[in-house]
Amino acid sequence: MNEQAMKEVVAQILSCVLKEMASPSGQCHSCAPEDGPVPVELSARHVHLSEKDAIALFGAPLTHARDLSQPGQFLCKERVRLIGPKGVMDNVAILGPSRGKSQVEISKTDARALGVDAPVRQSGDVAGSPGILLSSATGLVGLEEGVIVAARHIHMAPEDAARFGVSDKDMVSVRLGTERPVVFEDVLVRVSDKFKLAMHIDADEGNASGWKKGVDGVIVARSGQGHEH
Amino acid sequence: MNEQAMKEVVAQILSCVLKEMASPSGQCHSCAPEDGPVPVELSARHVHLSEKDAIALFGAPLTHARDLSQPGQFLCKERVRLIGPKGVMDNVAILGPSRGKSQVEISKTDARALGVDAPVRQSGDVAGSPGILLSSATGLVGLEEGVIVAARHIHMAPEDAARFGVSDKDMVSVRLGTERPVVFEDVLVRVSDKFKLAMHIDADEGNASGWKKGVDGVIVARSGQGHEH
Repeated sequence: MNEQAMKEVVAQILSCVLKEMASPSGQCHSCAPEDGPVPVELSARHVHLSEKDAIALFGAPLTHARDLSQPGQFLCKERVRLIGPKGVMDNVAILGPSRGKSQVEISKTDARALGVDAPVRQSGDVAGSPGILLSSATGLVGLEEGVIVAARHIHMAPEDAARFGVSDKDMVSVRLGTERPVVFEDVLVRVSDKFKLAMHIDADEGNASGWKKGVDGVIVARSGQGHEH
Repeated sequence: MNEQAMKEVVAQILSCVLKEMASPSGQCHSCAPEDGPVPVELSARHVHLSEKDAIALFGAPLTHARDLSQPGQFLCKERVRLIGPKGVMDNVAILGPSRGKSQVEISKTDARALGVDAPVRQSGDVAGSPGILLSSATGLVGLEEGVIVAARHIHMAPEDAARFGVSDKDMVSVRLGTERPVVFEDVLVRVSDKFKLAMHIDADEGNASGWKKGVDGVIVARSGQGHEH
């Protein structure tokens, strides 16, 4: 948490304490956690590359095409082909900046088409996941592991976490009130002052829930510190 | 409802009334509606054909390959190709017996790949839905409408409806306690003495909820007579 964010949280807590002291019932109504809205974004299939793999594929580091909603994250000009034992997917997006280890995030539908048994995991948790081949017009990289179905999660800043009454690694349930209304349970909360408020679901979850651009979610349950998946 | 089913429902109600009369609290504990289990089946993309369209495609009526879970319904030996403006899908299942009007049931993922904007509808409600081309090795049929994403629903017999405390056309919420736990709201209840208890979801809903063969659902909310979609 940076100094500015901490100041805001402390100011908010102080304001609540003062209101509680002034209130006959000793309760500050504005302290009740908010439930939403939480903007919901669909995270289509994409790849994160290590610098070494980026250079093996493109002969140069990744280049910026446009910014994404999370600060510092960007879509790259480069695209890659996924080659699985059963199928191939062309023109797959690469997200930058490059990471320590390459990772491929697909849906269960994609996993079936490619022929890889990708587990549902949080980003970065790739141990024991299947590998895949990546190719460009000029290069080829074999990943020994790193293909996952990204578990749904909410990015939020510390101020959002305070508003919603949740902490980093909490699990919450989020309702999408669409034409196919759904409550997603076990949504991991990730808090960082580098994050902007957004829930990320994959293409299957988007299709199953009637997601459209601009849909918001509402936190309908908070189960506290999450269990490990 | 046939005579046997009606007898069973009446016998169940009578049994509850007698227990209530005998109970000091006037309540029959066994009358509380059950919540589950409801077997959940994944309904992969498939086609229902009118007899006319079946003959146009195959030169003969549909033939039985194997029985499905709903009594009288069967998978056909014949397969069909779906041809949309953007894509083609081969080897698509045909379900018999033939119906008054042909209908194509796909997922939102399929709809995107085929390039048809299929609405979420209950089976049979195809007015204004997009058309598609169907082809076999020997025939071609153009449907002017009939391509839908089947809305999730539960088939049940009258005895099941009595147990679960629901009626035909009720909407319920069903929880799947999988590795990606989800509550599906607005699940239509369809009651008939021709039905066997089963909830049907499509491939996107199955993938999004971590469905596997043998998964059961639990009814977590009953919203009474459903609204029209």
